[in-house]
Amino acid sequence: MSGIKTHGEKKLMLFSGRAYPELAQEVAQNLACELVPTAAHDFANGETFVRFLESVRGCDAFVIQSHTAPINQWIMEQLIMVDALKRASARRITVVAPFFGYARQDKKHRGREPISARLMADLFKAAGADRLITVDLHTAQIQGFFDGPVDHLFALELLADHVAGTLDGSQVTVVAPDAGRVRVAERWTDRLGCPLAIIHKRRDPMVANEVKVFEVVGQVEGRTCVIVDDMIDTGGTIVKAAEALFEQGAARVVVTATHGVLSGPAVDRLKNSRISEVVLTNTLPITADKRFDKLTVLSIASLLASAINEVFHDGSVTSLFDGEV
Amino acid sequence: MSGIKTHGEKKLMLFSGRAYPELAQEVAQNLACELVPTAAHDFANGETFVRFLESVRGCDAFVIQSHTAPINQWIMEQLIMVDALKRASARRITVVAPFFGYARQDKKHRGREPISARLMADLFKAAGADRLITVDLHTAQIQGFFDGPVDHLFALELLADHVAGTLDGSQVTVVAPDAGRVRVAERWTDRLGCPLAIIHKRRDPMVANEVKVFEVVGQVEGRTCVIVDDMIDTGGTIVKAAEALFEQGAARVVVTATHGVLSGPAVDRLKNSRISEVVLTNTLPITADKRFDKLTVLSIASLLASAINEVFHDGSVTSLFDGEV
Amino acid sequence: MSGIKTHGEKKLMLFSGRAYPELAQEVAQNLACELVPTAAHDFANGETFVRFLESVRGCDAFVIQSHTAPINQWIMEQLIMVDALKRASARRITVVAPFFGYARQDKKHRGREPISARLMADLFKAAGADRLITVDLHTAQIQGFFDGPVDHLFALELLADHVAGTLDGSQVTVVAPDAGRVRVAERWTDRLGCPLAIIHKRRDPMVANEVKVFEVVGQVEGRTCVIVDDMIDTGGTIVKAAEALFEQGAARVVVTATHGVLSGPAVDRLKNSRISEVVLTNTLPITADKRFDKLTVLSIASLLASAINEVFHDGSVTSLFDGEV
Amino acid sequence: MSGIKTHGEKKLMLFSGRAYPELAQEVAQNLACELVPTAAHDFANGETFVRFLESVRGCDAFVIQSHTAPINQWIMEQLIMVDALKRASARRITVVAPFFGYARQDKKHRGREPISARLMADLFKAAGADRLITVDLHTAQIQGFFDGPVDHLFALELLADHVAGTLDGSQVTVVAPDAGRVRVAERWTDRLGCPLAIIHKRRDPMVANEVKVFEVVGQVEGRTCVIVDDMIDTGGTIVKAAEALFEQGAARVVVTATHGVLSGPAVDRLKNSRISEVVLTNTLPITADKRFDKLTVLSIASLLASAINEVFHDGSVTSLFDGEV
Amino acid sequence: MSGIKTHGEKKLMLFSGRAYPELAQEVAQNLACELVPTAAHDFANGETFVRFLESVRGCDAFVIQSHTAPINQWIMEQLIMVDALKRASARRITVVAPFFGYARQDKKHRGREPISARLMADLFKAAGADRLITVDLHTAQIQGFFDGPVDHLFALELLADHVAGTLDGSQVTVVAPDAGRVRVAERWTDRLGCPLAIIHKRRDPMVANEVKVFEVVGQVEGRTCVIVDDMIDTGGTIVKAAEALFEQGAARVVVTATHGVLSGPAVDRLKNSRISEVVLTNTLPITADKRFDKLTVLSIASLLASAINEVFHDGSVTSLFDGEV
Amino acid sequence: MSGIKTHGEKKLMLFSGRAYPELAQEVAQNLACELVPTAAHDFANGETFVRFLESVRGCDAFVIQSHTAPINQWIMEQLIMVDALKRASARRITVVAPFFGYARQDKKHRGREPISARLMADLFKAAGADRLITVDLHTAQIQGFFDGPVDHLFALELLADHVAGTLDGSQVTVVAPDAGRVRVAERWTDRLGCPLAIIHKRRDPMVANEVKVFEVVGQVEGRTCVIVDDMIDTGGTIVKAAEALFEQGAARVVVTATHGVLSGPAVDRLKNSRISEVVLTNTLPITADKRFDKLTVLSIASLLASAINEVFHDGSVTSLFDGEV
Repeated sequence: MSGIKTHGEKKLMLFSGRAYPELAQEVAQNLACELVPTAAHDFANGETFVRFLESVRGCDAFVIQSHTAPINQWIMEQLIMVDALKRASARRITVVAPFFGYARQDKKHRGREPISARLMADLFKAAGADRLITVDLHTAQIQGFFDGPVDHLFALELLADHVAGTLDGSQVTVVAPDAGRVRVAERWTDRLGCPLAIIHKRRDPMVANEVKVFEVVGQVEGRTCVIVDDMIDTGGTIVKAAEALFEQGAARVVVTATHGVLSGPAVDRLKNSRISEVVLTNTLPITADKRFDKLTVLSIASLLASAINEVFHDGSVTSLFDGEV
Repeated sequence: MSGIKTHGEKKLMLFSGRAYPELAQEVAQNLACELVPTAAHDFANGETFVRFLESVRGCDAFVIQSHTAPINQWIMEQLIMVDALKRASARRITVVAPFFGYARQDKKHRGREPISARLMADLFKAAGADRLITVDLHTAQIQGFFDGPVDHLFALELLADHVAGTLDGSQVTVVAPDAGRVRVAERWTDRLGCPLAIIHKRRDPMVANEVKVFEVVGQVEGRTCVIVDDMIDTGGTIVKAAEALFEQGAARVVVTATHGVLSGPAVDRLKNSRISEVVLTNTLPITADKRFDKLTVLSIASLLASAINEVFHDGSVTSLFDGEV
Repeated sequence: MSGIKTHGEKKLMLFSGRAYPELAQEVAQNLACELVPTAAHDFANGETFVRFLESVRGCDAFVIQSHTAPINQWIMEQLIMVDALKRASARRITVVAPFFGYARQDKKHRGREPISARLMADLFKAAGADRLITVDLHTAQIQGFFDGPVDHLFALELLADHVAGTLDGSQVTVVAPDAGRVRVAERWTDRLGCPLAIIHKRRDPMVANEVKVFEVVGQVEGRTCVIVDDMIDTGGTIVKAAEALFEQGAARVVVTATHGVLSGPAVDRLKNSRISEVVLTNTLPITADKRFDKLTVLSIASLLASAINEVFHDGSVTSLFDGEV
Repeated sequence: MSGIKTHGEKKLMLFSGRAYPELAQEVAQNLACELVPTAAHDFANGETFVRFLESVRGCDAFVIQSHTAPINQWIMEQLIMVDALKRASARRITVVAPFFGYARQDKKHRGREPISARLMADLFKAAGADRLITVDLHTAQIQGFFDGPVDHLFALELLADHVAGTLDGSQVTVVAPDAGRVRVAERWTDRLGCPLAIIHKRRDPMVANEVKVFEVVGQVEGRTCVIVDDMIDTGGTIVKAAEALFEQGAARVVVTATHGVLSGPAVDRLKNSRISEVVLTNTLPITADKRFDKLTVLSIASLLASAINEVFHDGSVTSLFDGEV
Repeated sequence: MSGIKTHGEKKLMLFSGRAYPELAQEVAQNLACELVPTAAHDFANGETFVRFLESVRGCDAFVIQSHTAPINQWIMEQLIMVDALKRASARRITVVAPFFGYARQDKKHRGREPISARLMADLFKAAGADRLITVDLHTAQIQGFFDGPVDHLFALELLADHVAGTLDGSQVTVVAPDAGRVRVAERWTDRLGCPLAIIHKRRDPMVANEVKVFEVVGQVEGRTCVIVDDMIDTGGTIVKAAEALFEQGAARVVVTATHGVLSGPAVDRLKNSRISEVVLTNTLPITADKRFDKLTVLSIASLLASAINEVFHDGSVTSLFDGEV
Repeated sequence: MSGIKTHGEKKLMLFSGRAYPELAQEVAQNLACELVPTAAHDFANGETFVRFLESVRGCDAFVIQSHTAPINQWIMEQLIMVDALKRASARRITVVAPFFGYARQDKKHRGREPISARLMADLFKAAGADRLITVDLHTAQIQGFFDGPVDHLFALELLADHVAGTLDGSQVTVVAPDAGRVRVAERWTDRLGCPLAIIHKRRDPMVANEVKVFEVVGQVEGRTCVIVDDMIDTGGTIVKAAEALFEQGAARVVVTATHGVLSGPAVDRLKNSRISEVVLTNTLPITADKRFDKLTVLSIASLLASAINEVFHDGSVTSLFDGEV
């Protein structure tokens, strides 16, 4: 018989873009390995350049990038990293996007709009990504936008354990800040065994042009309200929701969200609000200037590392969530 | 110069599967054209055969099929029709699925599940479909599952006009029957200018194994509750939701939904319930044996015909909905 | 050097749809493994749901489904299983279709027909299948419809050994029941070293509208005729062929076919005919009510298991057939 | 409204490779247009270069090439022409291959063989072909190898009219020269209303190593045998078949085939045989040195031109064959 | 006959991203049409949103975006515009990128680098682009990166006419500033009928680490040197090249380039150099703060408009360049 | 847990087409393995047939073919080999094309030309190739034409070591024979530490119709000129370049190139020229009748074997060239 035989081997390699290397570093520590040394810089006109400083041939590559601002810059860098890995003969390429950019544009709200979340999924596929790992997608349907396996992780346990450990559960009412969050809020009520309220935004018939009124549906008087959201961007909606809750007699308002986008006025709004505590994870970088007293940031690194480990060793990601993936 | 020139022309042709030819016929009448004569039958072992009895070369084909039971049969027939059109040189093929099958399996609820709604979109693409037209998808994100244009139509106006014409608006509270329907319910409250309530299904901490309690969130006492859903399948959830509303003092319960799946015990459940009226459209066939006194069925044919007309003439489908597509 | 290394491993996992689990079970026994526990059911409106109850990450998956009636139902279930496996990160997915549905629609017989066999191949590809295993395709060209490896197995040895063991070879004439089967019939004559006859269906010039006359071409007087076909569907053609043979003086007629579709009147026709024996394999389920005295059913499970074993261990499927694959 | 409107127009343009420009010229005359002036040559190392000397932007391109020897050369030239048309913005590209090369390799006869006919279909697709037109494929299933519309034309009428006009129909027996041709032979018997015989090649049990015996199945004594084949390559099989017929008492043997490959010894074999007449079409060039007294060559150009005309004008190719495409 | 017929029509629509709307406006004026009104903005976290304010169904869309800094931002915006057009049923989508971003990364210079120019071509394809129009690619091979038609325009005539009109041709020597530009420089010498020199960058054997020496190959003493480049980015190379020419006795140095990237120190370097004139086109925006006395900017708008016009009307882009496209 | 586990293994298998089996044999010897026994022949009409005589299931296949004349024949054979490997379940298929055919047609030089180099890359992809290995592409951008990893090897070290070992380096001037070769020539000057000259082909203003004058740019008087090219085809350009160098006083001219195409008059031209030595590699076969006294042929086999070895063992091809791949 012709041919040369050898034993198969597989090799996990971890790559980080420049958006938030600290998180990637923390994941690497959890996995007890090093990030692959990578040269990356921008040319004078903004074009991104990436080169890996070690052979990646045949590896099982995990490319971590947080889609933080400037988001197009970092998504493009991750696409370029995937292209370089594909051309350098990586065996399998998993895009790890703890926060998946453009997730809110997951449908045409009106005619002639893009579905940018699907576009991003297609761009990663076109660049050569085989798989995705991400945390708390804006809507779970986005899993179906990618033509391949998606490991969708949940920060619920991480956040809920913190809340359960700091608040008196019998006083808590979970609040969905808008219609799109009710389903996730229900998961919280099931976990904490507590009631639900929702914020209903409706058009104000007294005022023209889409002005919305924040209406509380459900009982919140005297309750410790925990608003659960997937992300806090400018903080406007959350703060208005909190105000509406206080107007209805809420005793206290705590806010949790997986993704701390914290754009523009967000930090000031939250700081100056009557919200008692804001609990986030670090799927996105929360720099020192964005930290404030009432803010708690929990690390997602251990969850990401566990998922990567299961994927690499052909274990079960589902098992990390009691079947709920 | 070499070559032969001629004027371009385009030709709309309308095709119907065997699932619900009456609807296709009604659409054709609205468009003032005939359905293309088609031979279709099943072989003894269940294999489906289709042949078109007129030349379809170069046509702009619209293939209408309602994904009713036996649903796999009818989806496969539509796929086979698309294949036959592709191989017979149709210029463009639009799948018209008034009810898009498998839309509820739009994500992995747990690990190792399919995302069948994406699969269906991919199967239609693989067969040769260029575009989709559908009505009130279970979640709007499903638009993004298809790699091409999707014209997503809304029955809201049709249904809401009926409700507005038969009920006293000042007494109405719109009710979302579960978390996933809250967003659509908000569109109703905006249109009708009325309050919102939702049914919150939570795990019963007293009982093991996922038994759910139906809890009303919001004020319904003395109100005319209009439960708005996208589809009624077995009717179980809807009837329990109605009961919960009556328990909370609702004066009256009306139910509307776009898609009347009406499987198994649905008709009996609805008939025997205290629900005053059930309003559906005919995106799915509602046969005589499924009709009952309290049931109103509104025809979707005119909306489908308008959309097909706009698509064929390069008009605007968005304009049919004031920008809300 | 960065990265984590480990030894490569591969794991065969066997999955069965609900069409004919007994065959899958028998294959599993031959391989000395268990079928993967799977939850599968139909929703009230006929939508199929599947979920695997064990992690399948990284496995070499073989998904067995017999395309029996209701055939669209079972093909769709297999497609959905493939989708679920793809999204659950199976490494490689092989569709095992002992009888490949729609194989008879392997070309356009007339204009504006589908080529459904190619469509099925494309649908399996679109769902995520990497490879196919099947037995005795209606025409061997169907291998070329799938964009990937197809292991095409032959039941010839199984069937011919049975015939050779029960009949006097010197008396046998192999008969092709129509033009499309002549090539396979030649394989039989080569194996058994016996003469050939064919049934020639020609238009009856005396009668309008495609009525066909069954004409025997070749000598069959006093011979034991073995009609060899790939499948018996309604049995009409086979029984007419047998009658034509008896008219030409055949002493005895035996029928063999790989696939026992046995639709509608097939069993009665065969039972009531002068055919001495019908020999089939169990690529399709042959339920108790379809069994009759003259029927012999040989099991294909061992052949399927051998092929799966060779595929998994990178052995040779060709070697199972002396180079004839 | 923004934008500039104009009337649509379409323009047929006809291109010819260098394999057999005379046929393309004849097709052009039938269509009353000119071939597009094209520069084509081979570089010293055999690389093929093609450039069109007129703008082809937006045209409906038909690229004619006969797959004659050196066949790889001419297929590659046609692929390169398709690439050039795609990049030059032709609107639609139809490959016209009167004889489709590699059609005999339409399946794996044994393990580890290519399916070259599918490969050719894929190569044309990869190069940019939208559609195919071809005549009398070796097996009709090859239509299904191409992912797009295939117009499969038949020379049966052309050939059969000639035969019917020159022979006494009551004396004719149609003969299939091997198992693969029986189906086509049946079409002839239906058209001519005459009996069928077939040549059965079986392994000679007296001699080792695949030596085949030619056995006549059916009655041919005293008959005018018309052997119908799709192509004559080296002529070996045909001549042996004719000999076998004469041995069984045939009065006369006429041979017809669509494709005159006529490789190597073919002409001498046919000339020196007892065959009375050989009837071919010019799907492949039959040069002066290959012509001989008994040879009749009928032109396929008019059929190709009719098909191109129907395709261009969105007419019906099926109608050219009474529904038999 | 079933169906509805109408005359075909086609409609050009022109879209502009936000990178450089003035150029798009100028192109629109040349075409005598309006840009399609478009809503575009960035969300707080940098995500880009685009919506077209008119129906685009069935249009022939041209999407103009200059890939200027921040380049990833503008490329992503153009991708999102293409996605929105695809989903809104535009018939054909042409990406107009006067300067094609990432063109310099057209190969792996060393191992484990991306080929970002190919990646960009693939991303545009994945988003839904059918065709590309661009000007003076860094290397002409990039045309081949896109899987579809590319109209590659040349600014040579525009630039050379300006040079010929302002300099004494008999004194001119064309200079290629590096090895990669020699081919283009030759086109200039052919057009101007003048000699060539090149700047040869070689490693300085006296100094470690890739320091390069600029060596003039060819005669430049007393000559008016016209350095021809495709783009000026930071200006470093160009200014060093000019110095090398002056050292070798050049009388005067003029610089021309198609693309004025003008990053960072470029303007200062050029202003402070002994270069007499810098001639650029406006494929990229050259804002007021980047303008300086010696700078001439020629408009590319008319060339783009001509090309778009030819493409829309199925004319010839080649004819714009005497066959040199 | 269900399933059967086994250790992963991988197996290199080496395949050779019929274009230049001696080189493949030499590579096999370097790797200490055998070529896989393969049956290959052409049918009478030129169709190519290939079959592998050993199981290839699961192997890591390397398919070596030199694209020599008749080049279309050998490229097609390689495509067919790839198809057969794909269908026979090879795990990974690497096309090894030491000389990549059609590389000179890497762009449209004028309108309505193909980009045949991209087409070849696409054809290999369509046939099933996963990766490419090649040597000294005509332009490095061609790497980007293939949608997958390309290992681009360089013969520079092999050739330059020979030159450095046979010539006095202080006397050497490296000469680029045309504009397209200047970049490679610069690599030589860096390696040898010597000056550069180039041959500038410009249109002769005295003579019509594209006649070109060969002009030497740079100092060559009294120098040993080493012309460095990627290939020598007909030798016309090289010999004219040498003459131009002698006219400018060159003392001696040596020619090196990676690919010895040596078509038509090449050997005579070189033999009869004043060129002292011609140094080539054997990426293409150089048969005995093409050998002449001044010709040196260096073997590329060891480089190919090293690259294959690195690819198979997941090593680094980059490391073979000090990072310069």
